[in-house]
Amino acid sequence: MVATTPVRSNAKILRIIRLRVTDKPGFLGKIATLLGELDANIGEITIVSQGHDFIIREFSLQIDDDTHLQCILEGLKVLEGVQVEAVIDPVQHAHEGGKIEIRSRVKLDSVEEMHRIYTPGVAQICKLIEKEPQASKVYTSIANTVAVVTNGTAILGLGNIGAVAGMPVMEGKSVLYQQLVGISAVPILLNSTDIDVIVDTVAEIAPTFAAIHLEDIAAPECFAVEEQLQKRLNIPVLHDDQHATAVVVLGALMTVTQRTGIDLGTAKVGIIGLGAAGFGIAHLLKAYGVREILGTDLKKEAMERLEKAGGKPVDLNALMTDADVVVATTGVPGLIKPEMVQKGQVILALSNPDPEINPELAIKCGAEFAADGRTINNALAFPGLFRGALKIGATHFTDAMKIAAAHAIAGQTKMDSLVPSILDRDMHEAVAQAVMQAWLDGN
Amino acid sequence: MVATTPVRSNAKILRIIRLRVTDKPGFLGKIATLLGELDANIGEITIVSQGHDFIIREFSLQIDDDTHLQCILEGLKVLEGVQVEAVIDPVQHAHEGGKIEIRSRVKLDSVEEMHRIYTPGVAQICKLIEKEPQASKVYTSIANTVAVVTNGTAILGLGNIGAVAGMPVMEGKSVLYQQLVGISAVPILLNSTDIDVIVDTVAEIAPTFAAIHLEDIAAPECFAVEEQLQKRLNIPVLHDDQHATAVVVLGALMTVTQRTGIDLGTAKVGIIGLGAAGFGIAHLLKAYGVREILGTDLKKEAMERLEKAGGKPVDLNALMTDADVVVATTGVPGLIKPEMVQKGQVILALSNPDPEINPELAIKCGAEFAADGRTINNALAFPGLFRGALKIGATHFTDAMKIAAAHAIAGQTKMDSLVPSILDRDMHEAVAQAVMQAWLDGN
Repeated sequence: MVATTPVRSNAKILRIIRLRVTDKPGFLGKIATLLGELDANIGEITIVSQGHDFIIREFSLQIDDDTHLQCILEGLKVLEGVQVEAVIDPVQHAHEGGKIEIRSRVKLDSVEEMHRIYTPGVAQICKLIEKEPQASKVYTSIANTVAVVTNGTAILGLGNIGAVAGMPVMEGKSVLYQQLVGISAVPILLNSTDIDVIVDTVAEIAPTFAAIHLEDIAAPECFAVEEQLQKRLNIPVLHDDQHATAVVVLGALMTVTQRTGIDLGTAKVGIIGLGAAGFGIAHLLKAYGVREILGTDLKKEAMERLEKAGGKPVDLNALMTDADVVVATTGVPGLIKPEMVQKGQVILALSNPDPEINPELAIKCGAEFAADGRTINNALAFPGLFRGALKIGATHFTDAMKIAAAHAIAGQTKMDSLVPSILDRDMHEAVAQAVMQAWLDGN
Repeated sequence: MVATTPVRSNAKILRIIRLRVTDKPGFLGKIATLLGELDANIGEITIVSQGHDFIIREFSLQIDDDTHLQCILEGLKVLEGVQVEAVIDPVQHAHEGGKIEIRSRVKLDSVEEMHRIYTPGVAQICKLIEKEPQASKVYTSIANTVAVVTNGTAILGLGNIGAVAGMPVMEGKSVLYQQLVGISAVPILLNSTDIDVIVDTVAEIAPTFAAIHLEDIAAPECFAVEEQLQKRLNIPVLHDDQHATAVVVLGALMTVTQRTGIDLGTAKVGIIGLGAAGFGIAHLLKAYGVREILGTDLKKEAMERLEKAGGKPVDLNALMTDADVVVATTGVPGLIKPEMVQKGQVILALSNPDPEINPELAIKCGAEFAADGRTINNALAFPGLFRGALKIGATHFTDAMKIAAAHAIAGQTKMDSLVPSILDRDMHEAVAQAVMQAWLDGN
């Protein structure tokens, strides 16, 4: 995953502080001002309860760490009429018991209902599917179910923390799938880092699913895993980190270049960092018609892969000198030095939580447009990509489907934004529709 | 699966017939009488709508097949004031779109909520689990999730129809898990019939789950698959067809032998058919303390397996002559001839939909007690077995846990019944409690 969406780029944790406050005008302003001075980023403020002369409020805060929290709690002590009642960790609270569950879509309150959905009724449906395999698409959940598969080797920016430690991310994907586009997404955690084992395992369980979403699998294994599974299976297989990220970046670049008057087809685009995300971006931009793609990475293997895909491996300085558009996904904060920025450049410095160059600084150094990764989230793309593919019965994702998704994202972007909101259901529906149309046009 | 629960033992399909009926006293009686004469088994009768002189009713019917349906529709034509408006297949209707779905347990309506459950908040939970792996039990869904794994080689009594055709049964299990004991059960469909491939695949994806429920995998592969997985994994692995069936049979035998004054410990128990269910029953009865277990099967391999497990392989006639208690799970209707029945025998003829001997006939031939398989359903046992094991954090199922479950089932059985109702939530809770206590007592 390239991108996250913090409000402050270096805010690391969320806490809810419950305060008992004297119920008089002016107190809320004092508290908010103090919290701001203490560098806490305030989210929602809710009322828990109210007494005859006091009020209990909860303040959602984004803060750096526990030391920062202690500092804030100390600071609040000086405010008269304000008492800290509790500090809640809303993230832990939201994760308790896990974020997903399997639920029945049918009732089970009577013997009659059991006869229908279990024995003896179920045998009739089994026999129907045995005779007509396509009936499984109508009478089972398979056609609406996606496996979200990880081996935990590249979880967020945390690296190889293992599949189980990555489960909260997989469940998060599952929540997004269900809430945004109504797909059932089943996390599958794998032990192995061996390409053959991963491919064999996923291929073996594939009859359960309508598509395979590969997630947070490290480069370079991710490339072979995806390619081999696509060859072996007759259902869509997509490595989210490569392609969903690429779709969002392409969508954002469509928006930015249109606004800045750059022709993306003839522009030189430079990709800094050629891991899963960077390589996916290079590949999709090439497919979109960008003629010249420069790329740089510390790994020789990554540079060779780029060249094979039609890109031009260069060093960082050459890239920054030549590129009209720069996209960085390196995970290295501050990698792009102010003196490297060229006048008129478009720069997307996407590493989270700290970008390769601060956008304000890049603009000051002459960039025409600059943004960091806080809104460039692959969750803008993957729900609609899979929703569309499943609905139309696509057997695989084509570049045309991904490009159509990027167009849809750009088309749904408001005038003052780089990309739409992840919570915009209409946007996801528009992406799904575009993906379906692209599949139909190509088949 | 041994057992199903049809109301008529040979009723194969369910249909709802919607009738427009003159709204006068006597019509319902006429219809019900006619349907009975036409050999249709009537379930629920509901009112769809009512006019000033007519009423639209739906009759749920269990019938043999489509020919039987045509015969019923013809028969209804002779009734004046009754018109057939529609014939509905309630089983197909209940299965449309599949019977299960993955749902979010958290809301996703605001940016704040997304920050908690997805990025950036989720990283905090990932890091916590990386540091303290046990935290995955609190902050992910793993601890409450069971894989229901099949390769489709022994689906119901239908045989090897393939995993996808078996999916409606797996979803049915999942519905029972969620509705009866609140467990999330994920169907996993495998391509392979190769023991090593099945074991490797399940072991590879096992980190996703708190337990493995093997379902409808054919004998003899099922024995090795279960044994090898139990050795490799540190979570409960249970082949439902063997052990849940055995638990229910033991529970039923506890009830029956108590009522008939037989001492199960010193009784000779004969098992006819030593497939997954039969062998599971033999094994559990042995563990329970039944001293002499006779068994018979057409396969030499099955006879040898019984002998190794401490049972005595004999032929069918010898078994029927010697056994005080007979349990048959052969799938062969009418296998037990009237002349084989001994005075005072207890006979459970469990094959569905048609038993090895009709219970009434067995009683007429001198049996003290006889029953068929319509109520002996492994769904009486597996929800509580897994609920208990997950709650107490058991690493495997012991015989003591299974025996405790059987005791709980017997304890929850009403005076006039052989076993409790599957829909009896208190019974499942009692089984879970017994399983937990047995684990604690043994560890």
